[in-house]
Amino acid sequence: MKRDAFDTWSLAELDAVESTLDAFVPVDAPAGLGEAMRYGVLDGGKRLRPLLVLAASNAVGGRRAAALRAACAVELIHAYSLVHDDLPCMDDDVLRRGKPTVHVRFGVAQAMLAGDAMQALAFEVLTPDDGSVDPALQARLCALLARAAGGAGMAGGQAIDLASVGHPLDEHALSDMHRRKTGALLRASVLMGAACGTTDERGWRALSDYGSAVGLAFQVVDDILDVTQPSATLGKTAGKDHVHNKPTYVTVLGLDAARAHAETLRRAAHAALDTSGIADTEQLRELADRVVERDS
Amino acid sequence: MKRDAFDTWSLAELDAVESTLDAFVPVDAPAGLGEAMRYGVLDGGKRLRPLLVLAASNAVGGRRAAALRAACAVELIHAYSLVHDDLPCMDDDVLRRGKPTVHVRFGVAQAMLAGDAMQALAFEVLTPDDGSVDPALQARLCALLARAAGGAGMAGGQAIDLASVGHPLDEHALSDMHRRKTGALLRASVLMGAACGTTDERGWRALSDYGSAVGLAFQVVDDILDVTQPSATLGKTAGKDHVHNKPTYVTVLGLDAARAHAETLRRAAHAALDTSGIADTEQLRELADRVVERDS
Repeated sequence: MKRDAFDTWSLAELDAVESTLDAFVPVDAPAGLGEAMRYGVLDGGKRLRPLLVLAASNAVGGRRAAALRAACAVELIHAYSLVHDDLPCMDDDVLRRGKPTVHVRFGVAQAMLAGDAMQALAFEVLTPDDGSVDPALQARLCALLARAAGGAGMAGGQAIDLASVGHPLDEHALSDMHRRKTGALLRASVLMGAACGTTDERGWRALSDYGSAVGLAFQVVDDILDVTQPSATLGKTAGKDHVHNKPTYVTVLGLDAARAHAETLRRAAHAALDTSGIADTEQLRELADRVVERDS
Repeated sequence: MKRDAFDTWSLAELDAVESTLDAFVPVDAPAGLGEAMRYGVLDGGKRLRPLLVLAASNAVGGRRAAALRAACAVELIHAYSLVHDDLPCMDDDVLRRGKPTVHVRFGVAQAMLAGDAMQALAFEVLTPDDGSVDPALQARLCALLARAAGGAGMAGGQAIDLASVGHPLDEHALSDMHRRKTGALLRASVLMGAACGTTDERGWRALSDYGSAVGLAFQVVDDILDVTQPSATLGKTAGKDHVHNKPTYVTVLGLDAARAHAETLRRAAHAALDTSGIADTEQLRELADRVVERDS
C-alpha cells in the first residue's frame, strides 16, 4: 500500500473515531463525571486500537456501523486503563498524552469513577438498541472485549506488572505479562474487526497470530522509546520504567536485541497475513510497520 | 407466599448463586488478582440483586441458565462497586461483610485492579460461547447491565455522592442520587430477570416500576439502619454517613418520616406487581417485604 494512501485513510478514520467517541461519551454524566470521562478519552492518543479494528474489518468486508462502535469500545477500555494506571496507587503519573493526568486534573476519586464508567460505556457502545448492529454480533463483540479486558487479559497483566516491580523477570515471564497487559487488547482489536465481517477458520487464526505479534511488537517498541525518547516527544513521562525499577525488554534483552526482536515480530505479523487467505491486508500490513517504526 | 416457602426457595438460590460465582471467578488470575477478586465477591452479602434477577425470571418463565448468569453478573458489578467504594480515595472503609475490606487485605492497587477485573468478568459471564444462552439475549443483558453500571447509573450516582459530602441536598436531589447509585442496578436486576423470559409491554413497565420502588426502598432502609444498628449487625461500619457528613434520608426527612417513606415505597412495589398482568409475583412481593423489614 502506498504510504500516502494509508495516511489519507487513517487520518479520515481518526476523524471518524474522534467524532463518534465525542457523540458517545456523555457530556451530561452528573457531578463532573462526564467531563472527567471526556478528558480521559477525547482528543488524544494514537488510536492504534481503533485503526486495528477498522483495518481488520475492512480486510474481511465488515459492517461499518459495528466496526466503528467496536473501535470506540476498544479505545474506551484502553483509555480507562490508562486513567487507572496513572493513579497514585499504581504508576502515580502526572503526564499523559501531553496533558496532566485525569486524577491531577479532577482528583483521585473522580478519576477512578471516570475509569469505571468508561469501562461500562464500552459495553454500552457495543449494545445499541437502534437495530444498527445485529444482536448476535453485539454479543460476540462483548465476549471478545470482556475476555481481553479482564483477569486473563489486561487486568491480569497489570497485576503481574504490579508484582514485578523490583523483581527480575526472564524474557518468557516478561512476554507473558505483556501478552496480557497490552497484547490481549491489541489482539482483541483485530479480532473484533474480523468479527464484523466474514472469515474462515484459517483467516481467523491468521488474524489472531497477526494481532499477537503486533501486540508484543508494540510493547517492545514502547520499552525502547521509554529509554530513547524525551517526555516531550512521548507525551508521557519518559524513563519511568527505570525509575520504578520495572523489568522491560531493554533491561532484559539489551537495546540492540530489543530492536531486533521488534523486527522479528514485524516479520511474524506480515507472515501471518501472508497465510491468511484474505485478499486485502494492506492496511493491516502498514499498521504493523507503523507500530515498529514509530518514534512516539 | 408462605414465608417458609420463600425461605426454602431463597436459601436454595443463594447456594446456586454462590457455587456458580465460585466457578466463574477465576482461581488462577495471575499475581494474586484472582484471590483478591474471590475475596471481594464470594461468601458474603445478602445477594439481594441475584434474588431479584431469579425471582423476576421465575415470574415470566425465564430461562434458567441465562437467569443464573445474569444473577452472577449483577452481583459481580455490585461487589466491584463496593471494593472501589471502600478505597481510601472514596469512603476509606476498613470493614465490609464482617471482614477487612479488599484493599486492607490485598493493598490499594490490587483492590482497584480486582474491581476492574470483576466488572469485565460480569460481561464475560453474560456472553458464554457454549450455546447455553441465546446470543440476542446475551446482547440484551449486556445492554441492561452496562447502562445501569455506567455514568447515567451507578458510577454517575457515586459521582454525585462524592460531590455531595458536606452539602445539604433536598429530597429530590437525594432521590436522584440514589436512583442512580443503588437504584439503577437493583432495577436492572429485575429487568435482566424479566429479559430471560417473555413479558408484554405492560408487564415490562410494571416490573420496571417495581424495581425502581424496591431500589429506592433499599436505600431508605440502608440510611435508617446506618443510624439504628451497630456495625456488628451490619457487617460494615455503622454511622459512617454521619461521620462523612453525607446527606441521607434520615438527615433530610427525619427517622419517622424515613420509615414512613420506606412503607410507601413497599406499597408502590406491591401495587406495580398488582397491575403487571403477571400471574405469579409472590417471590418478588416477598422480596420487597424483606427489603423493607430487614435489620441488617
